[in-house]
Amino acid sequence: MTDVGDLAAFAELDLGRTARRGYPEAIYCEGKTPSQVGAIAAAVRGRPDIVTLFTRASAAHAEAVLAALPDARHDADGALLAWPPTPPVATGGLVTVVAAGTSDLRVAREAELTARYLGRPTELVVDVGVAGLHRILARVADLRRARAIVVVAGMDGALPSVVAGLVSAPVVAVPTSVGYGAAFGGLAPLLTMLNACAPGVAVVNIDNGYGAGHLAAQIAAPA
Amino acid sequence: MTDVGDLAAFAELDLGRTARRGYPEAIYCEGKTPSQVGAIAAAVRGRPDIVTLFTRASAAHAEAVLAALPDARHDADGALLAWPPTPPVATGGLVTVVAAGTSDLRVAREAELTARYLGRPTELVVDVGVAGLHRILARVADLRRARAIVVVAGMDGALPSVVAGLVSAPVVAVPTSVGYGAAFGGLAPLLTMLNACAPGVAVVNIDNGYGAGHLAAQIAAPA
Amino acid sequence: MTDVGDLAAFAELDLGRTARRGYPEAIYCEGKTPSQVGAIAAAVRGRPDIVTLFTRASAAHAEAVLAALPDARHDADGALLAWPPTPPVATGGLVTVVAAGTSDLRVAREAELTARYLGRPTELVVDVGVAGLHRILARVADLRRARAIVVVAGMDGALPSVVAGLVSAPVVAVPTSVGYGAAFGGLAPLLTMLNACAPGVAVVNIDNGYGAGHLAAQIAAPA
Amino acid sequence: MTDVGDLAAFAELDLGRTARRGYPEAIYCEGKTPSQVGAIAAAVRGRPDIVTLFTRASAAHAEAVLAALPDARHDADGALLAWPPTPPVATGGLVTVVAAGTSDLRVAREAELTARYLGRPTELVVDVGVAGLHRILARVADLRRARAIVVVAGMDGALPSVVAGLVSAPVVAVPTSVGYGAAFGGLAPLLTMLNACAPGVAVVNIDNGYGAGHLAAQIAAPA
Amino acid sequence: MTDVGDLAAFAELDLGRTARRGYPEAIYCEGKTPSQVGAIAAAVRGRPDIVTLFTRASAAHAEAVLAALPDARHDADGALLAWPPTPPVATGGLVTVVAAGTSDLRVAREAELTARYLGRPTELVVDVGVAGLHRILARVADLRRARAIVVVAGMDGALPSVVAGLVSAPVVAVPTSVGYGAAFGGLAPLLTMLNACAPGVAVVNIDNGYGAGHLAAQIAAPA
Amino acid sequence: MTDVGDLAAFAELDLGRTARRGYPEAIYCEGKTPSQVGAIAAAVRGRPDIVTLFTRASAAHAEAVLAALPDARHDADGALLAWPPTPPVATGGLVTVVAAGTSDLRVAREAELTARYLGRPTELVVDVGVAGLHRILARVADLRRARAIVVVAGMDGALPSVVAGLVSAPVVAVPTSVGYGAAFGGLAPLLTMLNACAPGVAVVNIDNGYGAGHLAAQIAAPA
Amino acid sequence: MTDVGDLAAFAELDLGRTARRGYPEAIYCEGKTPSQVGAIAAAVRGRPDIVTLFTRASAAHAEAVLAALPDARHDADGALLAWPPTPPVATGGLVTVVAAGTSDLRVAREAELTARYLGRPTELVVDVGVAGLHRILARVADLRRARAIVVVAGMDGALPSVVAGLVSAPVVAVPTSVGYGAAFGGLAPLLTMLNACAPGVAVVNIDNGYGAGHLAAQIAAPA
Amino acid sequence: MTDVGDLAAFAELDLGRTARRGYPEAIYCEGKTPSQVGAIAAAVRGRPDIVTLFTRASAAHAEAVLAALPDARHDADGALLAWPPTPPVATGGLVTVVAAGTSDLRVAREAELTARYLGRPTELVVDVGVAGLHRILARVADLRRARAIVVVAGMDGALPSVVAGLVSAPVVAVPTSVGYGAAFGGLAPLLTMLNACAPGVAVVNIDNGYGAGHLAAQIAAPA
Repeated sequence: MTDVGDLAAFAELDLGRTARRGYPEAIYCEGKTPSQVGAIAAAVRGRPDIVTLFTRASAAHAEAVLAALPDARHDADGALLAWPPTPPVATGGLVTVVAAGTSDLRVAREAELTARYLGRPTELVVDVGVAGLHRILARVADLRRARAIVVVAGMDGALPSVVAGLVSAPVVAVPTSVGYGAAFGGLAPLLTMLNACAPGVAVVNIDNGYGAGHLAAQIAAPA
Repeated sequence: MTDVGDLAAFAELDLGRTARRGYPEAIYCEGKTPSQVGAIAAAVRGRPDIVTLFTRASAAHAEAVLAALPDARHDADGALLAWPPTPPVATGGLVTVVAAGTSDLRVAREAELTARYLGRPTELVVDVGVAGLHRILARVADLRRARAIVVVAGMDGALPSVVAGLVSAPVVAVPTSVGYGAAFGGLAPLLTMLNACAPGVAVVNIDNGYGAGHLAAQIAAPA
Repeated sequence: MTDVGDLAAFAELDLGRTARRGYPEAIYCEGKTPSQVGAIAAAVRGRPDIVTLFTRASAAHAEAVLAALPDARHDADGALLAWPPTPPVATGGLVTVVAAGTSDLRVAREAELTARYLGRPTELVVDVGVAGLHRILARVADLRRARAIVVVAGMDGALPSVVAGLVSAPVVAVPTSVGYGAAFGGLAPLLTMLNACAPGVAVVNIDNGYGAGHLAAQIAAPA
Repeated sequence: MTDVGDLAAFAELDLGRTARRGYPEAIYCEGKTPSQVGAIAAAVRGRPDIVTLFTRASAAHAEAVLAALPDARHDADGALLAWPPTPPVATGGLVTVVAAGTSDLRVAREAELTARYLGRPTELVVDVGVAGLHRILARVADLRRARAIVVVAGMDGALPSVVAGLVSAPVVAVPTSVGYGAAFGGLAPLLTMLNACAPGVAVVNIDNGYGAGHLAAQIAAPA
Repeated sequence: MTDVGDLAAFAELDLGRTARRGYPEAIYCEGKTPSQVGAIAAAVRGRPDIVTLFTRASAAHAEAVLAALPDARHDADGALLAWPPTPPVATGGLVTVVAAGTSDLRVAREAELTARYLGRPTELVVDVGVAGLHRILARVADLRRARAIVVVAGMDGALPSVVAGLVSAPVVAVPTSVGYGAAFGGLAPLLTMLNACAPGVAVVNIDNGYGAGHLAAQIAAPA
Repeated sequence: MTDVGDLAAFAELDLGRTARRGYPEAIYCEGKTPSQVGAIAAAVRGRPDIVTLFTRASAAHAEAVLAALPDARHDADGALLAWPPTPPVATGGLVTVVAAGTSDLRVAREAELTARYLGRPTELVVDVGVAGLHRILARVADLRRARAIVVVAGMDGALPSVVAGLVSAPVVAVPTSVGYGAAFGGLAPLLTMLNACAPGVAVVNIDNGYGAGHLAAQIAAPA
Repeated sequence: MTDVGDLAAFAELDLGRTARRGYPEAIYCEGKTPSQVGAIAAAVRGRPDIVTLFTRASAAHAEAVLAALPDARHDADGALLAWPPTPPVATGGLVTVVAAGTSDLRVAREAELTARYLGRPTELVVDVGVAGLHRILARVADLRRARAIVVVAGMDGALPSVVAGLVSAPVVAVPTSVGYGAAFGGLAPLLTMLNACAPGVAVVNIDNGYGAGHLAAQIAAPA
Repeated sequence: MTDVGDLAAFAELDLGRTARRGYPEAIYCEGKTPSQVGAIAAAVRGRPDIVTLFTRASAAHAEAVLAALPDARHDADGALLAWPPTPPVATGGLVTVVAAGTSDLRVAREAELTARYLGRPTELVVDVGVAGLHRILARVADLRRARAIVVVAGMDGALPSVVAGLVSAPVVAVPTSVGYGAAFGGLAPLLTMLNACAPGVAVVNIDNGYGAGHLAAQIAAPA
């Protein structure tokens, strides 16, 4: 039988990933104990040449990371930590993140920060749901400046269809678990987005701001 | 054991319904044989004082109805027959039926005809899905004239949210089984509509144009 | 990157909505922090000409609202706050809210208060589930006085079908998450209501008393 | 390897079942070829002391059975054949089968015939759905004579709750696949019935008239 | 608007039910506050001629009932209280309750007590799951003495099929939410039981020991 | 753009698989046209050293294979073709395939033939469902001779739990789509089997006789 | 009532879309009759400056299009027609379409042709599923030349995770309805792809080759 | 009524199981109270000849077991206790347990310990998910030494397909509830694994490390 006592027993860090794919390492904190996350944080301390993101970090996770990497940037709105704290110089096209409602903010923020730490310039547009179309119509010129747009929405998830019909950039849609009853934890907006009647919409997992920001950064990468 | 041989054995017609609720009798044809439907048609022949609708009627159902009621109106687009053929004089408020796409036409037509045969004036607006917002925005003045609006949409089902945000009349949303894959036979637009972020939207069963038209006619009934 | 520090960063209030749609502003509290809700309450303080509702408010949300709007009406049964506290003069037709069981009371109360704050006269009828038909049959005359009826039920969700068969007013059905096991959080009564065999039933989201009351108020609006 | 060529290779008839459980043998025809069903029919020919039922029999299945057992009773309404054709003398309590709508007739008839061939007296009541409560209320005295009641309903599946509230006999509820859209092939009435708010309701599989009739016959068996 | 302040506002007790259906009143405690339950307990105190059951009662619910009805019987295993505490004299056939595993005990106990308070003699057989067939086979003679059998099982839910194949009495199957993963809160055994390959099995809601005991008591009622 | 005209454009045969994993090549015919399957059959003609199986082959697929490989063995019961036609000499432990009902025969036969063509000795046991336990109990000695047991069952899917409790060999469970209603195309037995209360049961996809036979052959492979 | 007799009654063509979004018009043929599709084809004949695609076209749809546009390109593998037939000069980055299996070819071809008619250079890689990793590993250099990669897979849907781990370009994943049983019409690979453990994967609807190709063309558009 | 007061009332221990099936007794702790588990632990104390496992044990369960069996081995990583503490001498083939990610460790450890206490030699390989293929490719030689391989994975669940394509041993796949959103508590990897495109994969319940380890030990048992 194996002895399950140290880092090697529960995680094989993949620091060659930056070289292989050109993007940061990300540690998904949920489902890991704070002490596991802390051990990983300590292990990356020797590699300031690589950006490391800690996503979906609870307060306890954040504390463990900051113990090992005191100067890490902690964005509580996005439940995310980044180290080294300063994002790379922005290159490539603009990534704009659009959130339908206030309650979608955590996910939207996670998407924006991820794209920013992958090196893109970013903007955030909040509370422009389709129940009041004038709000999104007022932002069309802003949206058309983007090379990739992340649209975050819960409940009816109708916003990506509307946005995709107004721009020619690709739209990455993120359903959120905001809502209740027949929202079924985000299933409703997920299905809405998969059936978007406007072409140019792709979907990531419910609440997956990290994945959306990552994809948008890849789309908007410099040629 | 019961002998299952005549009308009494398989249907108890409810011709007192008009008196009780003030609305026509409707025969849902699917799941009945043409000869059962024909027998019902023959039975209502003696009651021209009551409007009878035959809904979701296949060609074979229609033939059986027309054999018994040769002057019935048959609308193949809406898969519906009405007898007597002339609708009542229009009273009450306007019922407007909006269809997102061409493929939603059967359901929209069923809704419109039902509302018309319940005595309301009606209008039909087709192919105004949210992928091209200019189409629905161009019709806002028309929509604002209605006392009740039926919105029919498949796929992402986003149109009712958008319409409800533009008017003050109640919106009756009808998801359709148009689409494929993750539309799951209409489940996707059904969930979208139940989670509409604009208030003022109520939902009926997938493809249930009859129910939507009936409800809209009740809403727009004269005081 | 955006700075996420004040109201503008997480909410774009839509105080023009009253003018546009003729109905109050509603703040859905779940998924917002008490301090976010409190900031919104402070922002509406300058607009006593508009009714604002705070729905699905926890005790902490209520406390935050009352700190900013001390005279707001707080109805703990309906988990709702309204400001200004006095509802508008009642106009239009009667909205009657019917609840199948005691456990459906929160949702029923939310529906009733919403309709009342949108300006309709309202009545509430409780504990008249179909397991004892005599209870609902004893109230038929009351039900027939209504211009719009909201029916709230969990578990088998059978009550709206029965009510719709007894009246000619439109029925807005609200499934609730009351129940266990195969009630699947309200899925069972939701499906029952969508398949109501009586015409004249439309459905809103599980537990969505606000949406039902809003729709009923629109239906019963003065001509 | 096994040679798959004769009856023994695909079916092990269980003619001891009557002795063991006191009830007939039943052959479920769907999923068997007509020739397999015909071979089984030929095999039971030597056992006229045992009632054999062939359920969910297509026209082709019926033909194959009748070729082997020419005097078998074929009830096309119930898609069922019985041999020997004469049912046993009726003993025990009355089994009443109630069908909400005309489209539920096949299942209701299967239930009635099964109960009758298990030896109970039976009655059939058709087209008494809850949309017109007066129809079921007019039959209460009839229902109260039964020792066991089978209630067959599709769509909203609300009838068993209502019936169970009116009688003291046990109710066996059978959801049917009648309906469309959010009926989801009978899932909607299945869930409704499992959540019946009146006690005294048990549920069998969608469209399972045979199982319901069998259970009702067991309940009403002579002491 | 209604004033929601006393018992009449949230519950209409149905003490005529005993006369109408011949069975006790039952109060489903979940979803009611302890003070609501206590008010109901106080209201039934004047009617010792009727048995009242309080089901799915938490410790707080039990305390509220006992405050009003100090001599009520409280069975913590079954989460049930009964008042008056002494069950009726046992009449009719035997009701046997069978539980597949130890974890199914609460539901099984609820079923047994319900049947007993409806007036039947009862027995309880525990931990006889199909993984060790010898356990259930050793009890066949006991099972054959019953007029109605309740079988409670979670996980694979296979026990009712096996029991129904061994006896001629009707089997009422109760799926439980015991298990994890693909048990999906009791969905797995629910589907298993609905598809039982042995006839004579009817199903009630997941964890619904009360409903199963009630039905079994009706089946085994004296002629 | 690519030119889609020959075998290379739609299939990359993997004839090195035998070497790499030690097992035959299998062509899943469903979703391929008969002419695509025929082209593949022609391509393997030059490799009689490798066993090739064509699974889920319709009559048209079979015809196309036999045109290219006239001496292939075609087993219509199992919807399978094998070439070269003679199976390998049997080595390793016995694989026994058990089918609950006659309707499960196609899947059971596919499993048996697959295991046989992978080189194991096989046996087939049919129609031993749990509704009549004596049938499976009569075969326990046979079952205990097996090194691996495949159990095929639809509807309640209870047989694998029972079999696994009787033997010490591993059980590979195959749910089938036999049944109707709440069987939901095999979902019911799939969930039953995943929740088997006896340890030693693993599950493959609904109707996947090929996968089960393959796995059983691997389990029973000679040391 | 509306008269439903000509093109204007069922479709509002959106020929301004090219100007607005810079991409072709697409006509989704399923759910439209051949004569409706033919009328649309006739209507676009006057606009050879705009590329029009007819997707998911049956043979009857294709015939109707070719009657109106005899020189349209018809690709039966992809169930797609394009007019004018010559695709635009290729600009922007390479779009590579990868199909896991032969049965995924229709969807893959639809994706490739869509991207090509939107103006990108394209390549197609077929039959490189993860069951034989050497196949996809052999193509890594090819994959790394792409600016956007579409990965089409049914059954386990595992290929996009593997591909995304090998490249730095964005991956658009398309689940297909290929498979049976627990593939549930494409639900299985859809969920797999939404949960891809490699970042950089976005998902479109089941079988939606058109949407994937469109999105990939947008991603790879020239700066 | 039964008196529910001692061990016999809630559990029938099956200590003959070792003889009958040749494997240890296992106590599934979830859903049992610590005192029930403690009573069972006390009951097995007299049988040190049989290995007893306590699975899914919370800290409170562990404490209760250790009070009765102070020298039991408690592995907190695997939430499992074993008594007697020393595993049997290892015989038969190697069982290798592979975990895709760190968060899958509890389940993987439960599988490994179960196989070890059933008498097999075991190895554990952690954090080799498909997003970085080089990690699993680096371990192929290790994997090929195993007689049975358990693969534990959440989220996309793609690892078993990949592993099965690289080895000739049978693969037992365990989906885990690791993940969020469209992972739906493990449903996503469960479906992925059931649809594995490589043959040789069988699946157990979500998070069921015990079942997987048991099955693998049976597969790798000495001849």
